[in-house]
Amino acid sequence: MQRSGLITLLTDFGQRDGYVAAMKGVMLSLHPPAQLIDLSHEVEPQNVYAGAFLLQAHYSYFPPGTVHLAVVDPGVGSERAALACLAGNHFFVAPDNGLLDFCLDSSGRRAVRLTQKKFWRKTPSSTFHGRDIFAPVAAHLARGESLANLGEPFELQRRLPSLECRAVGKTLRGQVIYIDRFGNLISNITAQRLRAFSRNRPVTITLAGHLIGGLCKTYSDVPPDAPLTLIGSFGYLEIGVNLGNAQARFGVRCGASIAIELGQTI
Amino acid sequence: MQRSGLITLLTDFGQRDGYVAAMKGVMLSLHPPAQLIDLSHEVEPQNVYAGAFLLQAHYSYFPPGTVHLAVVDPGVGSERAALACLAGNHFFVAPDNGLLDFCLDSSGRRAVRLTQKKFWRKTPSSTFHGRDIFAPVAAHLARGESLANLGEPFELQRRLPSLECRAVGKTLRGQVIYIDRFGNLISNITAQRLRAFSRNRPVTITLAGHLIGGLCKTYSDVPPDAPLTLIGSFGYLEIGVNLGNAQARFGVRCGASIAIELGQTI
Amino acid sequence: MQRSGLITLLTDFGQRDGYVAAMKGVMLSLHPPAQLIDLSHEVEPQNVYAGAFLLQAHYSYFPPGTVHLAVVDPGVGSERAALACLAGNHFFVAPDNGLLDFCLDSSGRRAVRLTQKKFWRKTPSSTFHGRDIFAPVAAHLARGESLANLGEPFELQRRLPSLECRAVGKTLRGQVIYIDRFGNLISNITAQRLRAFSRNRPVTITLAGHLIGGLCKTYSDVPPDAPLTLIGSFGYLEIGVNLGNAQARFGVRCGASIAIELGQTI
Repeated sequence: MQRSGLITLLTDFGQRDGYVAAMKGVMLSLHPPAQLIDLSHEVEPQNVYAGAFLLQAHYSYFPPGTVHLAVVDPGVGSERAALACLAGNHFFVAPDNGLLDFCLDSSGRRAVRLTQKKFWRKTPSSTFHGRDIFAPVAAHLARGESLANLGEPFELQRRLPSLECRAVGKTLRGQVIYIDRFGNLISNITAQRLRAFSRNRPVTITLAGHLIGGLCKTYSDVPPDAPLTLIGSFGYLEIGVNLGNAQARFGVRCGASIAIELGQTI
Repeated sequence: MQRSGLITLLTDFGQRDGYVAAMKGVMLSLHPPAQLIDLSHEVEPQNVYAGAFLLQAHYSYFPPGTVHLAVVDPGVGSERAALACLAGNHFFVAPDNGLLDFCLDSSGRRAVRLTQKKFWRKTPSSTFHGRDIFAPVAAHLARGESLANLGEPFELQRRLPSLECRAVGKTLRGQVIYIDRFGNLISNITAQRLRAFSRNRPVTITLAGHLIGGLCKTYSDVPPDAPLTLIGSFGYLEIGVNLGNAQARFGVRCGASIAIELGQTI
Repeated sequence: MQRSGLITLLTDFGQRDGYVAAMKGVMLSLHPPAQLIDLSHEVEPQNVYAGAFLLQAHYSYFPPGTVHLAVVDPGVGSERAALACLAGNHFFVAPDNGLLDFCLDSSGRRAVRLTQKKFWRKTPSSTFHGRDIFAPVAAHLARGESLANLGEPFELQRRLPSLECRAVGKTLRGQVIYIDRFGNLISNITAQRLRAFSRNRPVTITLAGHLIGGLCKTYSDVPPDAPLTLIGSFGYLEIGVNLGNAQARFGVRCGASIAIELGQTI
């Protein structure tokens, strides 16, 4: 697998304290031509599920052969494994806690548990494996080190609840799995799943008991301040408010239930 | 027009949700050597005026031939045009909603409406033209595609109220048009305009009924916690508080009136 | 001293207003191949001490020959000197206000006061030396200009209180000097200092009157929500809460006292 020269970074470290900069310094010291792109550093602290969702949502916009370094790591210093994987022509370096769950569905995936300490910083700390283990390993991968050399073969297992929604009788049931900066409520209901359910018939969407209405194509399909449902840019059904904030409007959180039924809203 | 290799990004997307990273992935997939610089992603959501102000304030610090990608786009998915422009030796890619109003005064400007879909991502979403239309077009521009090939010639029109202040009798009247992170209140009164009005005579400045005083040269011209007026780094008259926050002190918002009169403060 | 091609940026400007982008535009105009890495732009406004701590904590992860541009500058426009320094094979460009205090301990350090205006932007503003003086000087340094050409030799002096903790009788006394995004309380007690004091005997740690307990190795050594003390990734003793926020738990601020005594917690 040819390398793209790119390394993306996803963490819950924020950008305030310089933790991300230290990781970048480590990587650029080992591989000066690397191009580093921030995917997000504002994952809610220790929310592995949100990190896994964002990584899955965005990694595939990068060229094949990109290394994706992901560190949301509440178990740092414990016995959880540290991993490097290849799946769908992308490389991933992350703790084994579910962060990669939604990226590794592709066939032909391979993983190793990071055990070869010569690719780490000397005397790694027990609190910042991002800087001391994951970052140097990502840099070595980006400059062409083979996955197999980094550690022992490892069998990946799912760690997180599935993203799947389910049809219960005549209702398709899902939930809010991510809320973005604009207050848009992103569900686990994909465009394909919705299409298979509705077969182009009109549907009525309810959020935690609030009737939202039918499916729109874009925000401006409804008046300012009106709520709406559409297939958002993540490829999932989203509930938003035109020029407004749906989270503030409905007061819901991740996990809130969404129900889709056939038939037009009265 | 030679390209600089640089693409700047201005959005209201924040950096939390990965939307910006997806745009960067799209651009680097099309044009790997591009150098991407964040201008700001913290424009107040859907505040086109604030975005237009920031873009105008900063774009000219970049080398000629830079592509400036700007997406503050409350009308995404509606009939508003998508544009690429060349003005003052800089390229701009943005929705036609006023975001470029303050950058396009230079002579020799040219614009096209983006209609050539071969430069877009396939099957663009109706909610994220930043990723699906503007980003790929910016990448094509940066790697040398000619403006004319991207779409149809388009006649630019002003969309936003002018930045101009005005003299009313013996008073120069302006307003607060931007408030920065430090709470400095930036007005629409330029250094030149003030000079033409005062012709080096002393002036007295009032903000929303609060007497501020005369014109200073730098923050430390007044004691800690004292308010002051100076020509700030944007090139506009600003009201600040030395080692403090003028927005918090005076409780004003964008639009607050500023009056400048000849004569010394008693 | 060979240059690494890297320039890091540390400021209190935030990323919202485009001030950082203007500095980057200035640098890339002068030295297009420069690679720019954000160390932090979220230093608390005008908190020189916090900026000095972060710079010292992270600069050495970058390769020798890197230029570190640091601007937390409450005295901008006053008579404070503007500096460029070489120490420990790294270059620094910053105001003379203590921001470099904790980086300049290395032997063989050299400094100049920036007086050669040909390396500045023309007609610098009196409010934004970051863009008009420090950024262009950093770019010239990164592309190989010699330190000596930038100004007059300058004798560095300490400006900030020392980071040192002190032993008082049988107690090692320190204080909280930085609080990170996770609410971890970072002290001025280094691993070495603690080791010299305890000589591997058990210790008991108290924070502002709250008994914390002994020294752990990693967060997961205590149950969720329990407080703990460990040597953190900065190399200093830190007080945290496993999967929680120590600042919120104890309601303390920078300056809060930490006492370490020999003997096991009962």
